[in-house]
Amino acid sequence: MSKKLTKRSEDYSKWYNELVVRADLAENSAVRGCMIIKPYGFAIWEKMKEELDKKFKATGHQNAYFPLFVPKSLFEAEEKNAEGFAKECAVVTHYRLKNNPDEPGKLMVDPEAKLEEELVVRPTSEAIIWSTYKNWIQSYRDLPILINQWANVVRWEMRTRLFLRTAEFLWQEGHTAHATKQEALDETLLINNLYADFAENFMAIPVIRGVKSESERFAGAVDTHCIEALMQDGKALQAGTSHFLGQNFAKAFDVKFATSEGGLEHVWATSWGVSTRLMGALIMTHSDDNGLVLPPNLAPIQVVIVPIYKGADQLEEIAKVATSIKENLEEKGVSVKFDDRDNVKPGFKFNDYELKGVPLRIAIGPKDLENNQVELARRDTLEKSYVPQSELADLIPVLLKEIQDELYHKAKSFRDSHITEVNSFEEFKEVLSNKGGFVSAHWDGTAASEEAIKKATKATIRCIPYAAVEEEGKCVFSGNVSAKRVLFAKAY
Amino acid sequence: MSKKLTKRSEDYSKWYNELVVRADLAENSAVRGCMIIKPYGFAIWEKMKEELDKKFKATGHQNAYFPLFVPKSLFEAEEKNAEGFAKECAVVTHYRLKNNPDEPGKLMVDPEAKLEEELVVRPTSEAIIWSTYKNWIQSYRDLPILINQWANVVRWEMRTRLFLRTAEFLWQEGHTAHATKQEALDETLLINNLYADFAENFMAIPVIRGVKSESERFAGAVDTHCIEALMQDGKALQAGTSHFLGQNFAKAFDVKFATSEGGLEHVWATSWGVSTRLMGALIMTHSDDNGLVLPPNLAPIQVVIVPIYKGADQLEEIAKVATSIKENLEEKGVSVKFDDRDNVKPGFKFNDYELKGVPLRIAIGPKDLENNQVELARRDTLEKSYVPQSELADLIPVLLKEIQDELYHKAKSFRDSHITEVNSFEEFKEVLSNKGGFVSAHWDGTAASEEAIKKATKATIRCIPYAAVEEEGKCVFSGNVSAKRVLFAKAY
Repeated sequence: MSKKLTKRSEDYSKWYNELVVRADLAENSAVRGCMIIKPYGFAIWEKMKEELDKKFKATGHQNAYFPLFVPKSLFEAEEKNAEGFAKECAVVTHYRLKNNPDEPGKLMVDPEAKLEEELVVRPTSEAIIWSTYKNWIQSYRDLPILINQWANVVRWEMRTRLFLRTAEFLWQEGHTAHATKQEALDETLLINNLYADFAENFMAIPVIRGVKSESERFAGAVDTHCIEALMQDGKALQAGTSHFLGQNFAKAFDVKFATSEGGLEHVWATSWGVSTRLMGALIMTHSDDNGLVLPPNLAPIQVVIVPIYKGADQLEEIAKVATSIKENLEEKGVSVKFDDRDNVKPGFKFNDYELKGVPLRIAIGPKDLENNQVELARRDTLEKSYVPQSELADLIPVLLKEIQDELYHKAKSFRDSHITEVNSFEEFKEVLSNKGGFVSAHWDGTAASEEAIKKATKATIRCIPYAAVEEEGKCVFSGNVSAKRVLFAKAY
Repeated sequence: MSKKLTKRSEDYSKWYNELVVRADLAENSAVRGCMIIKPYGFAIWEKMKEELDKKFKATGHQNAYFPLFVPKSLFEAEEKNAEGFAKECAVVTHYRLKNNPDEPGKLMVDPEAKLEEELVVRPTSEAIIWSTYKNWIQSYRDLPILINQWANVVRWEMRTRLFLRTAEFLWQEGHTAHATKQEALDETLLINNLYADFAENFMAIPVIRGVKSESERFAGAVDTHCIEALMQDGKALQAGTSHFLGQNFAKAFDVKFATSEGGLEHVWATSWGVSTRLMGALIMTHSDDNGLVLPPNLAPIQVVIVPIYKGADQLEEIAKVATSIKENLEEKGVSVKFDDRDNVKPGFKFNDYELKGVPLRIAIGPKDLENNQVELARRDTLEKSYVPQSELADLIPVLLKEIQDELYHKAKSFRDSHITEVNSFEEFKEVLSNKGGFVSAHWDGTAASEEAIKKATKATIRCIPYAAVEEEGKCVFSGNVSAKRVLFAKAY
């Protein structure tokens, strides 16, 4: 009935696009580059939000909300930031429509309702927030400010892909203000580690923590820390960034504070964010040719129960057992769906829940009733087994935990086996085109070599890992001296 | 130190504006008409969101996310809806900025990056959502669709006030699709009752449930149901609306479904929403001349503990007791703050928490330590009493519940005493200008009388209450026959 997904080995990109739509995660909208996040996809995003929000609050951050629009004069105040985003800005120029006299029933922009100053739809909120912080900060006693906001932002991308690169996306952006450089540096690191912990222990996505090279830095930042994940096709994906902004925005918006010693100094800043892009990372870390594979932490439905029956009497018998299993599992905090739809066959349901990545499937037929058992299938390994009904309530929470762990370890061992040390540019190119993944290579620290490598291979420096070992080496491109290896990869 | 608030009796509007800013709820931004919701205000909004979201999910609704932008051609498809919002639309016309050659360091809109079709920043999402539902709905089996989204919307208002009327605001908007008229009518009612339950039992705001007159209806709706609250100054505030949209949007976007009998019919629709406007209702229902009064359900801090001490030794002794009280209360789910700041006096703290509406304040001084007691003050009644420390953990949860209930009953008795039946237009005007509140009067059902009354008195029909009794009467304005009384009021 339903066509099979394109295989990953045939066309990874096509597989991804098909999967996102067919698993009911998201779809393209009538608005160029903007996506619709469907209920099933949004339920996954909500689980991410909830967990992140808890982590932010546990580390002393509070949520707030700042305007969608940034007046052009504020937007351009921090020049590097403005320059970095200018080419992607959606701009509001008018505030009214009127009837089109030439086309009855149609509307047109009212030329008399032109704004005196254009409004940029926020691509990021440093400008509007720092113009506000100026009024909130007078003394060291007003610091630190630790604020996060959940919001939509718009970056007018020319080539878009669901979740990975969309004109509008959802994200959280933290914006903090500090009295000292050290405190801001600590915050930058705290958040990057928080992101890594979240990615690994909640999403089962192994990441490498590190710092960006200058050319990959956030526009307006002094340093950008990041977590980098590796997708199944050997391309890297930046999963989160945490920026040390130094005093750049404080200077652009003239934000000073009276120090405890009676001086007057510019405030230190950080900003950090993760977005709905994480949905892309999730999909491309765990899924397979049958569809989505969800870590149990993120699964809106953790267990689905499918009845196999002929006639209403059998269904009724099975429903009794299914309902009791469901209740017992829900008591243990497991989310369960009993799918008793009678207009589709069990096989259709099996395929559908496989496509949607439901971690565990229980099937119950007449034979199972007789034997007080069920058929239990794991989505990740596709293994099936028969389990006594009486053991399910104890077994399933343990199994969900096990699946969560195994998904992480599977992804980690794939990732680890795709970090390849190379010592020549020949080797670099060879690994990149045949094996893919991260290439660990010496680099002389210059933008020139970085640019030349990118031009020749499409690989960029994903990060200088925190864990990079100091060792003498020669730049794989220029042959000049290098003190540590950095990670290159092609990237999303 | 801190100036007192303007008294409500002196200037209610000024009192409101001062309170919103000084209680750290929100402030105006650099963007005309757009507000900044500060952490304390946002924490209150989050509590509303969480409770509403739970209620929506418990009634079978799912969250999703649709684009911020609506192409003009979609926006204008449902003509009445388009006409209703056209004058308030922020419009994106360009997608890029570039360096301004005449002013180095400044940006300008790039005239070469003009959009082929202008994008309206959503003032409401029926158009973008129904253009999507068209692809989701083929058969009766695809119905109902019960979707909600939490989002920001923009309506370019000329005169704005924090929370009550802002160019950008936060809200939730439900958009449902049904196979039958009856089902859509039931949904409209279900949600209006859900809103009423939320307002009354969670926010302690009594509301009247009813239906709007034609002229007060949502643009594009067949019927608008609403909940109407009464503010302390005798003006009404529309706190939530639930629209029965009939087949208007289905027809505008050609959304048909195959019925179970093999026919083809247009889909029935509802939409419904509440917004950050509820923050305004909250403030103007419960607060007093000393500041905000928060129902415990909505208080980010339910209990604050203030130490009264001289010197570090005393503080240390008090801190021990305070910490133990805090822990005991937190175990019972009460949120507690121990404010041990040493740079401000207790009196300053007392005023500050009064301004911020913290329901209960515990003060502990050296005398209290000796007597194993605390001073406990209620924000709503300003009553103080001494309470043995050992009784606090049992007393406070009970007291919070009591405060919640009493706030509701206080507001309800104010509201009930401000519904005045009148039988002549003289009486109508007299009550409206001297007493305020809802005026319950017969109306002949015509837009002409409604308009004339509005012109003469500024009062509008707030709703035709569900509970209105059928009785013979004469329209208070025209003298024509009327079958029931409706509620008029001046409104926010």
